[in-house]
Amino acid sequence: MLDNRVKIIEVGVRDGLQNESTPVPTEIKLELINRLAQSGLGVIEATSFVSPKWVPQMADHQQIVEQLVQQYSAESKIHFPVLTPNLKGFENARAAGAKEVAVFAAASESFSQKNINCSIDESIERFKPIFEQAQTAGIRVRGYVSCVLGCPYEGEISPEVVAKVAEKLYECGSYEVSLGDTIGVGTPGKTKSLIETIKNLIPVSNLAVHFHDTYGQALANIYAALESGVTNIDSSVAGLGGCPYAKGASGNVATEDVVYMLDGLGLDSGVNLDKLVDAGDYISQYLNRPNNSKVAQAILAKRTS
Amino acid sequence: MLDNRVKIIEVGVRDGLQNESTPVPTEIKLELINRLAQSGLGVIEATSFVSPKWVPQMADHQQIVEQLVQQYSAESKIHFPVLTPNLKGFENARAAGAKEVAVFAAASESFSQKNINCSIDESIERFKPIFEQAQTAGIRVRGYVSCVLGCPYEGEISPEVVAKVAEKLYECGSYEVSLGDTIGVGTPGKTKSLIETIKNLIPVSNLAVHFHDTYGQALANIYAALESGVTNIDSSVAGLGGCPYAKGASGNVATEDVVYMLDGLGLDSGVNLDKLVDAGDYISQYLNRPNNSKVAQAILAKRTS
Repeated sequence: MLDNRVKIIEVGVRDGLQNESTPVPTEIKLELINRLAQSGLGVIEATSFVSPKWVPQMADHQQIVEQLVQQYSAESKIHFPVLTPNLKGFENARAAGAKEVAVFAAASESFSQKNINCSIDESIERFKPIFEQAQTAGIRVRGYVSCVLGCPYEGEISPEVVAKVAEKLYECGSYEVSLGDTIGVGTPGKTKSLIETIKNLIPVSNLAVHFHDTYGQALANIYAALESGVTNIDSSVAGLGGCPYAKGASGNVATEDVVYMLDGLGLDSGVNLDKLVDAGDYISQYLNRPNNSKVAQAILAKRTS
Repeated sequence: MLDNRVKIIEVGVRDGLQNESTPVPTEIKLELINRLAQSGLGVIEATSFVSPKWVPQMADHQQIVEQLVQQYSAESKIHFPVLTPNLKGFENARAAGAKEVAVFAAASESFSQKNINCSIDESIERFKPIFEQAQTAGIRVRGYVSCVLGCPYEGEISPEVVAKVAEKLYECGSYEVSLGDTIGVGTPGKTKSLIETIKNLIPVSNLAVHFHDTYGQALANIYAALESGVTNIDSSVAGLGGCPYAKGASGNVATEDVVYMLDGLGLDSGVNLDKLVDAGDYISQYLNRPNNSKVAQAILAKRTS
């Protein structure tokens, strides 16, 4: 029932580090990215082309992308998508040499209004020039949908509403649509219902799931998603991150914990768990913060015992 | 596929508090038990009849049971099992008025030897007089099997070996056999294989699962067990506990996180989550320790925001 190959989309460098009160230096980010790449991760979200005024943590987006373009040859199979919230961000990302970008819409009107100051439909309209220019330039576009299992303002969101937003992003040209439980309220049964609903509109191989562990449900939800045929999983090394705009949102599910589960299930993520734990330990030590991955905690404790 | 009614066996007062370096006073334990009972929990493991020399944390077992017998009438539907590692413990438990006891065996020979100084078969032989006397006295016996998904000394344990031990405990007269992932290494696929194997020997309604969250897999494993028909789940309020004998073992899965998942799945545990969070907050505050339940953390943060 479960496919054998699972792709992990590492989001810690962007979704994690964008929430640090003190911006992390460029060279630390690049070292983390290199360590993550060495662990075998094939997709590492590298930065966000947002205004440095709003997100100073990502102000070095141009250097990050230029450095990665220089360091990783065109033959490298590693993808470094960057978040582009608007056309200006996209143009800057393209100018820096980005080969993959990501756009995001919400499944909740209230969240869309409070987060990006426009309706869901308006946000998708604004992305259309990005999709068009990306296609011309041979740049892949990934689509995010937030609040897929609940909204901090509206509560439950129906799977049909999420499916409509996901479908629009897919029809616009997203090669993959990532379904985000932004506030981490989802449970496995609702995760399954959501995937089963969206599978009617989008091939499951073009879906990804993005869980936050606010209520400790992330891994159970990922397992449910795997059972429904999902093979693309967003996660964050050392559980870095959270969402500054969503009340009560805590960190992303830890990549280490996901890889441990996949290994146990006999699913192949291509990631070396020990090297991944090293990468998470590196950034946790830099940030001087407890590692939010239970697997990392257990493995690091074993190493020192 | 999922049964609608799920029974939770709350183990925090015993499995959790037995690991506290400073014994928790009897009145605090009783207050915690009362708060847990008020939340709707129907089974609360109350104490352990071990030697106070070895486990001073449970030295007040007689007072605990006597107090509960006095406080909860014979008509009360709440069960308060107590751990009885040997016949002496059983006799003391019975004398105090216990109506339900629990015995424990390991699925790993090395663990059995290091933990209780005898082979698996010897441990079960020693329990036989307990089973006999319990039957005469109308006392229910619950059986625990530890190391069901891995042993700190032997590594992987085959489902067939676990099934044999579980079957023996069941044949001896255990009304329920609790399968413990003592070191928290299990993953959902292995959990399913284990349950499916044991279901051939013991009705699934007589099985329980007992997960530690060392590698963050506990809830995913519980979800997998539910899918295999298990309807009895051990858990610990505020994630109290761990196993002092197992290297790297961290806390039990938090009852709050289990109840949140069950609520989301539309399964009825009979537990009021808010009252349960109160009980976990009470003991966490007493212990002056972070609450290990993510659900409790999220709910408590919401209450104060």
